[in-house]
Amino acid sequence: MNSETVRSSAQLAKMVGGHLYGDSEKHIKGVAPFERSGPQEITLASDVQFLKNLDKTGAGAAIVPESFPDCEKWAAGGISIIAVKNPRAAWAKIMQFFYPPYHPEWKISDAAHIGKNFICGENPNIGPFAVIGENVTAGDRVVIYPHVYIGDNVSMGDDVIIHANVTIAFGTKIGSRVIIQPGAVIGRDGFGFAPDGGKWKRIPQIGNVHIEDDVEIGPLNAIDRATFGTTRIGSGVKTDSQVQIAHNVSVGENSIIVAQVGISGSVTIGKNVTLAARAGIAQHLTIGDGAILGPKAGVMKNVPENTVLSGTPAIPHRQWLRVQAVLPGLPELKKKIATLESLIEKMQVDAGKKFNAEE
Amino acid sequence: MNSETVRSSAQLAKMVGGHLYGDSEKHIKGVAPFERSGPQEITLASDVQFLKNLDKTGAGAAIVPESFPDCEKWAAGGISIIAVKNPRAAWAKIMQFFYPPYHPEWKISDAAHIGKNFICGENPNIGPFAVIGENVTAGDRVVIYPHVYIGDNVSMGDDVIIHANVTIAFGTKIGSRVIIQPGAVIGRDGFGFAPDGGKWKRIPQIGNVHIEDDVEIGPLNAIDRATFGTTRIGSGVKTDSQVQIAHNVSVGENSIIVAQVGISGSVTIGKNVTLAARAGIAQHLTIGDGAILGPKAGVMKNVPENTVLSGTPAIPHRQWLRVQAVLPGLPELKKKIATLESLIEKMQVDAGKKFNAEE
Amino acid sequence: MNSETVRSSAQLAKMVGGHLYGDSEKHIKGVAPFERSGPQEITLASDVQFLKNLDKTGAGAAIVPESFPDCEKWAAGGISIIAVKNPRAAWAKIMQFFYPPYHPEWKISDAAHIGKNFICGENPNIGPFAVIGENVTAGDRVVIYPHVYIGDNVSMGDDVIIHANVTIAFGTKIGSRVIIQPGAVIGRDGFGFAPDGGKWKRIPQIGNVHIEDDVEIGPLNAIDRATFGTTRIGSGVKTDSQVQIAHNVSVGENSIIVAQVGISGSVTIGKNVTLAARAGIAQHLTIGDGAILGPKAGVMKNVPENTVLSGTPAIPHRQWLRVQAVLPGLPELKKKIATLESLIEKMQVDAGKKFNAEE
Repeated sequence: MNSETVRSSAQLAKMVGGHLYGDSEKHIKGVAPFERSGPQEITLASDVQFLKNLDKTGAGAAIVPESFPDCEKWAAGGISIIAVKNPRAAWAKIMQFFYPPYHPEWKISDAAHIGKNFICGENPNIGPFAVIGENVTAGDRVVIYPHVYIGDNVSMGDDVIIHANVTIAFGTKIGSRVIIQPGAVIGRDGFGFAPDGGKWKRIPQIGNVHIEDDVEIGPLNAIDRATFGTTRIGSGVKTDSQVQIAHNVSVGENSIIVAQVGISGSVTIGKNVTLAARAGIAQHLTIGDGAILGPKAGVMKNVPENTVLSGTPAIPHRQWLRVQAVLPGLPELKKKIATLESLIEKMQVDAGKKFNAEE
Repeated sequence: MNSETVRSSAQLAKMVGGHLYGDSEKHIKGVAPFERSGPQEITLASDVQFLKNLDKTGAGAAIVPESFPDCEKWAAGGISIIAVKNPRAAWAKIMQFFYPPYHPEWKISDAAHIGKNFICGENPNIGPFAVIGENVTAGDRVVIYPHVYIGDNVSMGDDVIIHANVTIAFGTKIGSRVIIQPGAVIGRDGFGFAPDGGKWKRIPQIGNVHIEDDVEIGPLNAIDRATFGTTRIGSGVKTDSQVQIAHNVSVGENSIIVAQVGISGSVTIGKNVTLAARAGIAQHLTIGDGAILGPKAGVMKNVPENTVLSGTPAIPHRQWLRVQAVLPGLPELKKKIATLESLIEKMQVDAGKKFNAEE
Repeated sequence: MNSETVRSSAQLAKMVGGHLYGDSEKHIKGVAPFERSGPQEITLASDVQFLKNLDKTGAGAAIVPESFPDCEKWAAGGISIIAVKNPRAAWAKIMQFFYPPYHPEWKISDAAHIGKNFICGENPNIGPFAVIGENVTAGDRVVIYPHVYIGDNVSMGDDVIIHANVTIAFGTKIGSRVIIQPGAVIGRDGFGFAPDGGKWKRIPQIGNVHIEDDVEIGPLNAIDRATFGTTRIGSGVKTDSQVQIAHNVSVGENSIIVAQVGISGSVTIGKNVTLAARAGIAQHLTIGDGAILGPKAGVMKNVPENTVLSGTPAIPHRQWLRVQAVLPGLPELKKKIATLESLIEKMQVDAGKKFNAEE
């Protein structure tokens, strides 16, 4: 934490490219949620319920959308207002400034185990009991926590952070500014077996995993090495907890993968895709750029670009909502059908005529 | 294990506040399941199929419900009977007595890495290659297995057990008598990002995790630190394997969370709630005290107290059962509707009249 | 990797018991996928789209099914053809030959922590910071990666490979040729608690886990010790990532368990069963030999042998397909029913008669 950092409201406005209304010299020392802010803190007021009630926060400054019409009015009331195009991004930036990532400082711990031919850049930070294999390369400022295992021939770029108890198998390529959360397993052999007389024979997996720049891998993820070639996690991708990504998958840039998602082998996922919690994708499918799969969606067909699907098997989200609205009444529909059958039967008897639906 | 421990049937009855029928001096050395018990073992007979067949166990003693009318009869047959209000709880207590938790004894291993200002109580038991950060405090009798990583400024109460390969990030608060099973990840940064021009910017997570007294966290759980404030696991909560609990969640006292459950950010769960295996809860929802979510239930609305829900989206469990009973017949219902349509069409033709359903 | 290994096409044919067509002296140095093979590589052409296009691969040799009629024709064109009964198994065998498993060589690392009375066979390979408890036995050629924790009284057969950050609790039995992928947790206490006045009391779990020969356990699996007796993983079973297997489960020989499956307590699974990704099984059920559960299937009843089920609750797969085909049209069916109701109402009015469906 960066507890002695102080900036004026004007400096913060400049930092995020925003327009400042009100006191430009207000001293700000931190960030806090709307309801719990104090006079030396800045808060986020991006939604209507906050913007209508700016007198309810105790914050000294607030970030608001540039479309907000009442900036001057509220600023006159004493709160410094920073108006920006993208309030959440501005908020993230100011939080990053006040709360830079926190790591212990180990330099290269005497208790780490470093293999032959380790080449690394400036200011490495490697914790006790980390194990680094042979012929590993790392850029500047890598942080490797205790109990990380890095296999032979792994490469890492600059500013990579690998948290505790992560396993990175041999031959994995990791870009710059990648964060790997605790307990993740990168590059184990993909799940490939050939049936042979009722038993299963291992198909060696001789590819690897490539994690591109600016990726964050969540805790306890399993990302498997390719049979041949590469399992690829495109730049800017963020994954949440306990995600499974099988061999030969390719995930496009800036896609977001929420907790407990499972992606089967050889799936190709486009850019800026959102996979909500626990979505699952069957093997060999393609998910188009910008597609959104709802929570628990189970996908068994290719998904076109920019479509929103839900359910298992997944269907368009709006259709799924309509189906789900009707589904709980299904037993009543069944009864109604029985009633109609009975009525028609009686009407036919009454008319003295028996019709045949099949003719 | 405690293999030389022996108690008389009378001592065991006293231990669990039960009433003893039959031989009070019988020597009992252990606990075994009904079908596989020997004369020096005690077994549990809480269900009707066991109570009717007490001659089928070889056990020297049996725990039965106090409502069981035939205690004296069976005791006369030679088996010591201990009648209690809550047989399963009595059984657990007797098992705990005969089989106290087993841990290796390391004291503080020379091969552990202990940071500055570690303050701990009596009889710590810290395994090789455990890493404890700076300014960590622990109560009496903590057990910390190998390859545990504990970040800076973590506090623990008495009798805490942290199994191998667990990661506990900085600032986590842990109460007394907490057990954390292997591979769990406590306190990593919550999954919070702000979209910014098609990319994702990390929103720093400056809160922490608080695990209260008597909690057991299952293996490979991921419990994320709060954005602000605290992600709270209330006292007495038990979680099973591979559970995900996102940032800012609060779980009420004595709730039980079965394997592979996923709880999204800012969810509030009441007391004595049961989340069956793989239930999922969307963000910002509230689950009332005593609610039960069935296996794989997907909850998208607040859940009132003491309700039982199933399905995705979750509906009342009984209604869900009725829907599921009808659902497999849906194709036949569709055919039946087509038949009725055809019949009505023919009846109209026959009557020489065309009606309009819309009018 | 085994990059200097070279074999003639005749030698490879002999290795897999295949029939060779064409040049028997062709030098083969490796295996590659169909589209990316070179003249010194062998590829797999088991499917029609490859067999029709054997001129499209650059491979020097191809494995084909023995039923393929055009072996001689293609061989005359220059590619060596190896015809076998089971092409995928032959391919796996040849890949295993060219790419034997790769492990660093540690012998017994000075930085490993070996407990009292460790008995092991020839050529152990134990990495730094591995911890082996007391009274552990191991066969020949075991490979134990860094940060593995093996509790007391664990036994292992020959050729066992335990990857990094795995936890194996005391008393676990492991057969020969078992592979345990990174981060798996074997033998933690099963999830057993007795309710007692609104709280939960731990039921000690005094059984163990037995992993039989030729099993592969996926990364981040949790396999729990039995309450009494043994949780058994039968020989030849393969599990994928993030699988949960609860206490007292028995998995039959050569069953395959895909990623994120959850198996509740006391379930008995037969031989050669397939549990597709994320299938779930409720407690105490029996799954017959050869059964197949589809992705996300939720099983709440016993499953007979050789049945294929899908959905939650699971129903026969073909029926499930029919239901899923109709389900998206449910809102339209509901409208149609309303239309029919209206028509029947009008027909009755027109006929001047009101029928009663209940009579």
